[in-house]
Amino acid sequence: MDQSDVTWNHLQILRDKAPLIHNITNYVVMNNTANALLALGASPVMAHAKEEVADMVSIASALVINIGTLSPGWVEAMETAMHAAGKKGIPVVLDPVGAGATPYRTETVKALMQKNPPDIIRGNASEIGALYSAENRTRGVDSTQDSQAALDPARFLAREYEAVVVVSGSTDYIVTDHNVSTVQNGSELMGKVTGMGCTATAVVAAFAAVIENQEKAALTAMSVMGIAGEIAALKSSGPGTLQLHFLDVLYNLDEKDLKQKLKSENNHA
Amino acid sequence: MDQSDVTWNHLQILRDKAPLIHNITNYVVMNNTANALLALGASPVMAHAKEEVADMVSIASALVINIGTLSPGWVEAMETAMHAAGKKGIPVVLDPVGAGATPYRTETVKALMQKNPPDIIRGNASEIGALYSAENRTRGVDSTQDSQAALDPARFLAREYEAVVVVSGSTDYIVTDHNVSTVQNGSELMGKVTGMGCTATAVVAAFAAVIENQEKAALTAMSVMGIAGEIAALKSSGPGTLQLHFLDVLYNLDEKDLKQKLKSENNHA
Amino acid sequence: MDQSDVTWNHLQILRDKAPLIHNITNYVVMNNTANALLALGASPVMAHAKEEVADMVSIASALVINIGTLSPGWVEAMETAMHAAGKKGIPVVLDPVGAGATPYRTETVKALMQKNPPDIIRGNASEIGALYSAENRTRGVDSTQDSQAALDPARFLAREYEAVVVVSGSTDYIVTDHNVSTVQNGSELMGKVTGMGCTATAVVAAFAAVIENQEKAALTAMSVMGIAGEIAALKSSGPGTLQLHFLDVLYNLDEKDLKQKLKSENNHA
Repeated sequence: MDQSDVTWNHLQILRDKAPLIHNITNYVVMNNTANALLALGASPVMAHAKEEVADMVSIASALVINIGTLSPGWVEAMETAMHAAGKKGIPVVLDPVGAGATPYRTETVKALMQKNPPDIIRGNASEIGALYSAENRTRGVDSTQDSQAALDPARFLAREYEAVVVVSGSTDYIVTDHNVSTVQNGSELMGKVTGMGCTATAVVAAFAAVIENQEKAALTAMSVMGIAGEIAALKSSGPGTLQLHFLDVLYNLDEKDLKQKLKSENNHA
Repeated sequence: MDQSDVTWNHLQILRDKAPLIHNITNYVVMNNTANALLALGASPVMAHAKEEVADMVSIASALVINIGTLSPGWVEAMETAMHAAGKKGIPVVLDPVGAGATPYRTETVKALMQKNPPDIIRGNASEIGALYSAENRTRGVDSTQDSQAALDPARFLAREYEAVVVVSGSTDYIVTDHNVSTVQNGSELMGKVTGMGCTATAVVAAFAAVIENQEKAALTAMSVMGIAGEIAALKSSGPGTLQLHFLDVLYNLDEKDLKQKLKSENNHA
Repeated sequence: MDQSDVTWNHLQILRDKAPLIHNITNYVVMNNTANALLALGASPVMAHAKEEVADMVSIASALVINIGTLSPGWVEAMETAMHAAGKKGIPVVLDPVGAGATPYRTETVKALMQKNPPDIIRGNASEIGALYSAENRTRGVDSTQDSQAALDPARFLAREYEAVVVVSGSTDYIVTDHNVSTVQNGSELMGKVTGMGCTATAVVAAFAAVIENQEKAALTAMSVMGIAGEIAALKSSGPGTLQLHFLDVLYNLDEKDLKQKLKSENNHA
């Protein structure tokens, strides 16, 4: 199978299995994330009480941890959930939103990773860079660095945590300790919609839930995100209409459109 | 008046009275819920601090309790608000989101109901079933059972709490201890938008605020939800566009469309 | 420069500087607020943990404090952030959502203002009135009074806190201790979308971040809000479509449309 067959095959598996994805994520994007997972064919659940996160993990197929609006009570629940997911053996996908913007974020996400190493980390170049070195303070959740520049930090994190690291940008990089794949799909307009990165993280988790090879799952996920965004942008007159077209496209994405648009490269292959 | 006259009459009363609906609901759907209430002609307010919920209840015409993203602090406020609403005599509508998915949810919602019995309970078949017996664990907020299968649990709850119980599904059932009404409106696409069930609960509360007969209020509410969703689905190419068309249709719903589409049956009548 | 040149010039400066706006706001509107700031050309960040708000303020150009879904933990963080913003000298814009609806809201917002006076206060007539006198209890977040009626309270607050006070309504008033400007733009349909007032507050903060004269910044902000809403309403069939057209229009707003639609009057000029 060539890459486009693999990607289409992955999407069919996801739609067929409809995995339950447990999200502990930020307030800003909960609604978008849930809708994107539904449109994709997965089943979202949001739960953050430390009283129930382990039980929720026990019925879920992947766990998303997103620190976009973190606070101590939530961090405690994240830790509990990550631990339970690790014991159960389901993939944990971490989104270090705004890492580097404040010491609290940077330190919290580092501590979470050290206690329970995630399977996949997805962030923009600033965030991935901040996890590598806390020296570079960023402007919050925006990416102010090129994603290329985050390749060294990504490789470091990939080795350190035995994780797949996804660096989002105009080119997306999927990085392991020995390989770098790229996705060239997407649209600049996606950066004008809040939470598109967080949605990408949830989409990565949905594929990771059903595709055993986490690197391939991440590559497919970023391709599907980018292609859906690209097609949606063509139909949109701004970031408002993009949001809804994105969900419609994700829901309707067919083999022809997906294969025609795909611009990913697996350097390993 | 036949059923379609009753339904249209109820909608006019609601638009005329514009009742204030106090929502203690989950993070995922707060925005949708508020927008749906506004589009319907009601006035939403969200407040969850135990310092103010009783005061907010004192100016509200109905209270929505939705446990979708519960945690102990919020549960405490829910209890306070439900108690205040009971004393004041305004309808309390409970949405047991995800009941059955974790013991914490199931136990919490049962405890809330036992302390302050709600006037109306709205959930999908899994959730209603879980309140009847904690044996059957569900896959989170999705309904994996047919709503018909929840009729026995619904009747039990209706008797136990002297409540009207609404079971949502492709057919909606409005259940009391002596009667079952049905609504056949709606669209499958509504299940691909997060929080449509939570919106239904808020719409039920809005009608319950202005129509004394809570069973009839629930029947009208589920009809209006279903009809709006049905018309909106015809204009939509997926779950993204459905969301906004749903709000537009709710806002513009007129006598002709409502009466033409109505497929409800009051078995009692 | 006439007023329309000033307004266009302000918008260009904002888009050029893309200021980082730190929002401690309510759950209902976080997503809308972030999207409106992005569409406008600013950069939003949401952070509420007391562990990080001062650090976030240190990299931000303005701070939004919105009490729409307040609770004690958040109020503590608001106070910390407002104090840090005051020390740093960046504008603080306060939105007293629902002030007057409950004693807790009214007292909390008064205490926040007294400890750290905001630079700009934006609310509807009910809310502004409630800050003046706690006698008049309101129906939650709706404005039930004409904005004209809030001019005396607004002048009082402007003097008391040396602040610019914006009273939103069919006419918007921008009030200082010696001046009243007005904006006649906007559409009634905007009142049927939740959080449009909260969005206005964030837009005010974005302009206040880049325009030194806070009164002029507020006047431009309310003009841009109103014009974008007005144009969007013409393209919309209800509150659902209005939301997305509003973001698209904000994103694409050009000199011709802005100047053609502008109906503001600076009585001071």
